Amino acid sequence: MNERLIVAYQLSPAKNQDIDALCREIALEQTVEMDADLVDSPTILEEIVGEILEIAPLNEPVGSHRAAIGYQAAVTAFSIPQLLNLLFGNISIKNNIRIVGLDLPGELLNQWRGPNHGIANIRQQLGTLHRPLAVTALKPMGSNATELAAMAGAFSRGGGDIVKDDHGLTDQPFCKFRERVERCQEAVSRATQTTGHPTLYFPNLCAPLEELEEQLQFAVETGVKGVLVSPFLLGLDTVRFLAAKYPIIYMGHPAFSGTHFHDRRHGMAPGVLLGTLFRLIGCDFSIYPNRGGRFSFTDEECASINRALQGALGDLHPAFPTPAGGMTLARVPEMAEAYGTDCAFLIGSALLREDPDLTVATQRFVSAIENCFA
Amino acid sequence: MNERLIVAYQLSPAKNQDIDALCREIALEQTVEMDADLVDSPTILEEIVGEILEIAPLNEPVGSHRAAIGYQAAVTAFSIPQLLNLLFGNISIKNNIRIVGLDLPGELLNQWRGPNHGIANIRQQLGTLHRPLAVTALKPMGSNATELAAMAGAFSRGGGDIVKDDHGLTDQPFCKFRERVERCQEAVSRATQTTGHPTLYFPNLCAPLEELEEQLQFAVETGVKGVLVSPFLLGLDTVRFLAAKYPIIYMGHPAFSGTHFHDRRHGMAPGVLLGTLFRLIGCDFSIYPNRGGRFSFTDEECASINRALQGALGDLHPAFPTPAGGMTLARVPEMAEAYGTDCAFLIGSALLREDPDLTVATQRFVSAIENCFA
Repeated sequence: MNERLIVAYQLSPAKNQDIDALCREIALEQTVEMDADLVDSPTILEEIVGEILEIAPLNEPVGSHRAAIGYQAAVTAFSIPQLLNLLFGNISIKNNIRIVGLDLPGELLNQWRGPNHGIANIRQQLGTLHRPLAVTALKPMGSNATELAAMAGAFSRGGGDIVKDDHGLTDQPFCKFRERVERCQEAVSRATQTTGHPTLYFPNLCAPLEELEEQLQFAVETGVKGVLVSPFLLGLDTVRFLAAKYPIIYMGHPAFSGTHFHDRRHGMAPGVLLGTLFRLIGCDFSIYPNRGGRFSFTDEECASINRALQGALGDLHPAFPTPAGGMTLARVPEMAEAYGTDCAFLIGSALLREDPDLTVATQRFVSAIENCFA
Repeated sequence: MNERLIVAYQLSPAKNQDIDALCREIALEQTVEMDADLVDSPTILEEIVGEILEIAPLNEPVGSHRAAIGYQAAVTAFSIPQLLNLLFGNISIKNNIRIVGLDLPGELLNQWRGPNHGIANIRQQLGTLHRPLAVTALKPMGSNATELAAMAGAFSRGGGDIVKDDHGLTDQPFCKFRERVERCQEAVSRATQTTGHPTLYFPNLCAPLEELEEQLQFAVETGVKGVLVSPFLLGLDTVRFLAAKYPIIYMGHPAFSGTHFHDRRHGMAPGVLLGTLFRLIGCDFSIYPNRGGRFSFTDEECASINRALQGALGDLHPAFPTPAGGMTLARVPEMAEAYGTDCAFLIGSALLREDPDLTVATQRFVSAIENCFA
């Protein structure tokens, strides 16, 4: 026991700010929340306050440093809410502190099961073994269940792998969750019987806490194998709870998390947040804004998410990186080269622009991927 | 029905970016998530996509605009997660968009009960009618339940109003929730019998979702009247759920929310997030980093939180602004002048520095407040 987690920070102190003092301030702020001279107990100073393990200057951003601080695993109480607090609770309100790495000991990794299925298992379910998955989103909000189900069926007949709801489709009066789930699931099931290729439909699970489990159970009874969740809208621990209790597939969406990425001097870096943490709470897929789309991640940020989702993390299954956000078919070869086989390409409205017949557009989408991995 | 919520944005577009196009982009992104030309249905364009109501240049920040967009209330599905998504889901990942105002129609305000008690009712419970409340925090993490209970008792004997756990105290092996709650509640109860002044103890409720209700019920059975919660750690809707189901007092802590405030061109402004939204989900108190403390809110940001907590918001009770973060007794007069009577002053470790005897320090704290409102 007494294992430690190690948090890596990128710090960009103000000109007159001492880097050693700043590291000490973080180690205190995230634990005892008081100055060291007020802490009477040497044991607390030694065992509870974080220990500064490393401070090294960085070339980029200019004037910044990389620091590593170790914390006793027990400080997290082995819970996601307190882990988030230890990582970035109070210091989220300070300036120019970015968490760029997170090394979790076995004692912590054993607490959480991570993705229920993982890449290999989901590939088996789909029968899509050797190429990135083709994913799309049902939209626009305001369409009724019949219209969305028609889209889901067309995508399925075109050979697509996964069709999810747009993450804004919840349980609005103009398109209720249950009716949508029934019709869309029926549409993909029917198409699957024709094509032989099992397209999965993931409804968006985004409801008041009282209704989440009922909605999820309803979806499972309807034949649904997975759901879309937005951990920042529902609460990260709520997603962890659902994934632990209901062992279906969870696809994580980054909605409401973006303030972490706005200024690269502050926040939790994409690889830690959308990679390590989303995987830890049970996401089998993590959707993120691809470089060069209508959002703004860099090549290295995308690569860091992919490493965090696919690389070793205790005994946890790897998860599918799911680049998205204004993607087009024309970019498939470039994405294939950058990301390799074990990911999912999410193309939303660009697929609607590709051809008025969504089945035809989907066939082209799947072919474009297959051509890169022939 | 068909009432609308109106969201006010401060937009700082890039030099070559057209402000009208940006507003249109937001109205589409937050609803249909596709370009308008791809939306076949005129009804959807008219009723689902946000309507731009106003665009006006701002003096500050230079080159920025204020815009107002109206959305049909039904788009929120009358749920907190989808309200958050409509407000700042996808656009959180874009740049230089700040939500500075939120006008909710009755149809939405009627969905949520807000604070269970409110300012007047909590004043009655405390018997502290005409001055700001004196609040402190139990710390440091690593202390055992007996040590923390001794602090709680000393603060209570000094006449303090509310003593809460530090928000990092959860259910660690070195200080378990139940033992801490029993001892601290017993300490304040005993002191209250001596002084006649009913100090309230608020334990920190921060646990895995499976354990939250059990912990809360245990606290209530022990005699606790309120809890500390961090909505960004637990999930905002989880706090809303708890407050609706268990009508005790909730004190909201801003941990993990700070990425919204790092760059004043992006995020949800403090008044909207820590004011309106925290009140909406049921916080009777909203703790925030006071100007001039060890964090960095401006005078106007603090004032905007206070207005959002105290001003009219449907039939919802007003909530106590609770400025905190490196406060000292010396600053009480200035805080009293700026904030007036209906708030709570949270002084943590500075109280420990004031006098080795926490009872004496607390007496000075309460006197300092009383002197400003004599």
